[in-house]
Amino acid sequence: MNNDRAKVVVLLSGGLDSTTLLYHHLKHGDEVRCISFNYGQRHGRELEAATRIAHLLNLPHQIVNLTELRRLLSGSSQTDSSIPVPEGKYDEETMKITVVPNRNMILLALSIGYAVANKMDYVSYAAHSGDHAIYPDCREEFAAGMDRVARLCDWHPVSLLRPFVKLTKANIVSYGKGLGVPYELTWSCYKGGEAHCGRCGTCIERREAFYLAQVEDPTVYHPSAPSIQDLIKNDWHLPP
Amino acid sequence: MNNDRAKVVVLLSGGLDSTTLLYHHLKHGDEVRCISFNYGQRHGRELEAATRIAHLLNLPHQIVNLTELRRLLSGSSQTDSSIPVPEGKYDEETMKITVVPNRNMILLALSIGYAVANKMDYVSYAAHSGDHAIYPDCREEFAAGMDRVARLCDWHPVSLLRPFVKLTKANIVSYGKGLGVPYELTWSCYKGGEAHCGRCGTCIERREAFYLAQVEDPTVYHPSAPSIQDLIKNDWHLPP
Repeated sequence: MNNDRAKVVVLLSGGLDSTTLLYHHLKHGDEVRCISFNYGQRHGRELEAATRIAHLLNLPHQIVNLTELRRLLSGSSQTDSSIPVPEGKYDEETMKITVVPNRNMILLALSIGYAVANKMDYVSYAAHSGDHAIYPDCREEFAAGMDRVARLCDWHPVSLLRPFVKLTKANIVSYGKGLGVPYELTWSCYKGGEAHCGRCGTCIERREAFYLAQVEDPTVYHPSAPSIQDLIKNDWHLPP
Repeated sequence: MNNDRAKVVVLLSGGLDSTTLLYHHLKHGDEVRCISFNYGQRHGRELEAATRIAHLLNLPHQIVNLTELRRLLSGSSQTDSSIPVPEGKYDEETMKITVVPNRNMILLALSIGYAVANKMDYVSYAAHSGDHAIYPDCREEFAAGMDRVARLCDWHPVSLLRPFVKLTKANIVSYGKGLGVPYELTWSCYKGGEAHCGRCGTCIERREAFYLAQVEDPTVYHPSAPSIQDLIKNDWHLPP
């Protein structure tokens, strides 16, 4: 390592984890560019959040429009509005339909291309210990393989960083609170309403993370959302 | 191996090599789907060729529109019409500007996603021995790394095939002639005129391949193209 600032492309979805990751790299004095993907999600709330956050920090932000992939990578509830979003805490059954085939390889390949084009040395993403085993492309050996091809794809090698890989979502929120992450600007909900629904899988994970981190949750939830007490009583599943 | 037909996604650019590859898999009785990419090339002649060939063979053909990548992956003469295409035989200097950052990883990642979505077992592409060392993502270790991540990215593993990796372009033409490949339908020229220009790097490679294979070249070249005799005299460089 020399004293130059590390040049890092951060995959910024606009959610809790990637926004904390962004603040992590800024705290370390890294030179940062953000990249986000519009791959035909049901709604644009996460992308809006990413855009607002990058703008707030005055950082270069590339949004890649991959809406064409909706047709290519069919069969996922995240991109096909004909399949209902599963509610309640994730379990293997409900998660399967939210898988976009080979999504991680595609997003990493594009981010690495963006890094090469801009002479950046790292691509950093917010993989964490809570990433579900139901996603094969969240496995350690997959990540190691992607790091290997990233180093080989160009004469300008790129390395992949996953600084949060050992952290839980609650650990991330706890760390981010200390970094001053404006969590009220981030978006998690799979549905795209005015407020977070408070009852889909990502909303419940979000609420659990703040609760376990003992950080006040600044998120506005829809009035119909179950109370945190009811969620706790039901072991973070939707009350019956 | 069992007796089921192999299910193969073929990367079909519409050029000599990938069209021969397609005929190779059909000859082996494989179940084939074709995928092509519009990544903001200067012209659509190759894609038109790919479409015509897939249609002729009555094969499923997915064209992925990646024109947004033009902005993301700037700096290449294949996607930026402000940079002139180099003429004459490729050498390291003129080739560099035709490199799209991380193109191979991106195209393979998308093809693997398409394979996963359609329960195909292989992605086959027409890498050959003439792929220039100037492309780091044509190296053996890169290809091996991509095969590894393809097998890991999903519970449905995909393997990468490169049946022509030991063949020269002339070997491919010679083999394809025997398969009945309609080379008159394929397109190589970097420029997008009515006829092949006959003088850009890919045209000269094409002409050399037919010459060395001793196969009649069915391509229509522009009247201003140098004669094959002049090219031979100049060691397959443009005559002065």
